[in-house]
Formats: sequence, structure tokens, C-alpha cells
Amino acid sequence: MKEFDLCPRFEAAVGLIGKRWTGLIIEVLLQEPQRFSEIAQAIPHVSDRMLAERLKELEAEGIVDRRVYPDTPVRVEYALTKKGRDLAPVMQALHDWANAWILAPTH
Amino acid sequence: MKEFDLCPRFEAAVGLIGKRWTGLIIEVLLQEPQRFSEIAQAIPHVSDRMLAERLKELEAEGIVDRRVYPDTPVRVEYALTKKGRDLAPVMQALHDWANAWILAPTH
Repeated sequence: MKEFDLCPRFEAAVGLIGKRWTGLIIEVLLQEPQRFSEIAQAIPHVSDRMLAERLKELEAEGIVDRRVYPDTPVRVEYALTKKGRDLAPVMQALHDWANAWILAPTH
Repeated sequence: MKEFDLCPRFEAAVGLIGKRWTGLIIEVLLQEPQRFSEIAQAIPHVSDRMLAERLKELEAEGIVDRRVYPDTPVRVEYALTKKGRDLAPVMQALHDWANAWILAPTH
């Protein structure tokens, strides 16, 4: 393990990714840039309001980029930035651990 | 990325590790088994009550093992189980990302 002087950054990172839905949103966007409705469809149980809030937070953190295309009607897509795409190894490690240790909920 | 059928497990894992203080507790215990007071000292700002609550949750999840040694006075140590130690790659990936992308808070 690295030295413990990283602790404030680590805590900030955990606080960011650990928020409800955030991990799943990043997961979905790692596949490809997607529209709001596509993200909503990919994540069961998230409300539109909550999804919009999380996307705004991720945009403010520089993890998600909101792209507006001047089509008719206007098309809006959400994409991961480099900072966001760099979370792929974290997501993969979490997947591996969850796959090994977490029983799939039955609900 | 793995297929999306892992999503409920992944969500459960994120929900578990993403709770405030939990990542840091795991981080501290990855170094070695420690007493309550040692963990509390290693994590700035966590209250004893909150730390006790998180340790109980982690014990219930099979991530932390509470070991009681019949010394005088009785000695209690908290150690990671295999399930807990297997989180090391997740923690390392988070560290690497945080180190690259998160500015150290100044507070």
C-alpha cells in the first residue's frame, strides 16, 4: 500500500464514487457516451431527478462531459472525460471483488 | 468491462465500500490488525460512535473479524477477513486514481 499521506485524496475519491448511483452511472458511460434516457433505462430504480443531480455533480467534478449537438431536435449526450475513463481499473477491481464475494440480491 | 448482469452485485459492493469512513477503515486494517483506539487515531475526524457503528457493519458483512484475546485486561483487535483483504486491489486502484486526479484538500 502507498503511504498514508494520500488519505485526504483517497477519502475524497471514495466520497465521490461511493455516492448512490454514481458508480453505476460511470459504469454505464464506460461503455459509450449516452443520452439521458439511455442512462436512465440502463440503471433500474434511479429517478430522473436523482440521475440529473448525479450527472451535474459528475460534470462539476470533471468526470462527465455534457455534449450538446445542434441537431433538430437538439441532441445531448453524456460522455466520460479522461478523468472519468481513468476510473475503469477501479470499476474492474470492484467488479472482480463483487463477483467473488457478493451474492446477487434476490430483490 | 464485464457484462451488465453483475450490476446488482456491483451496486451492493459500491454501496458497502462507498459509505463514509468505510474505505478508510479498510485501508487502515490492510496494514495490520489493530485495536479500536489505533484505528480511531489513524482516521482523523471520525467519532468513536461512528467508528464503532462502521466496524459492526463490516463485521456483519464478513469483511472485518473482531478478535478477543483473553489477556488482562482483555485485548480486542480488528482484522480483515479474506473477503476484506481481497479489497486490496480496489483500494490500490482508487489510490492510483485519486493520486492522479484529486487535488489534496487544503482543510
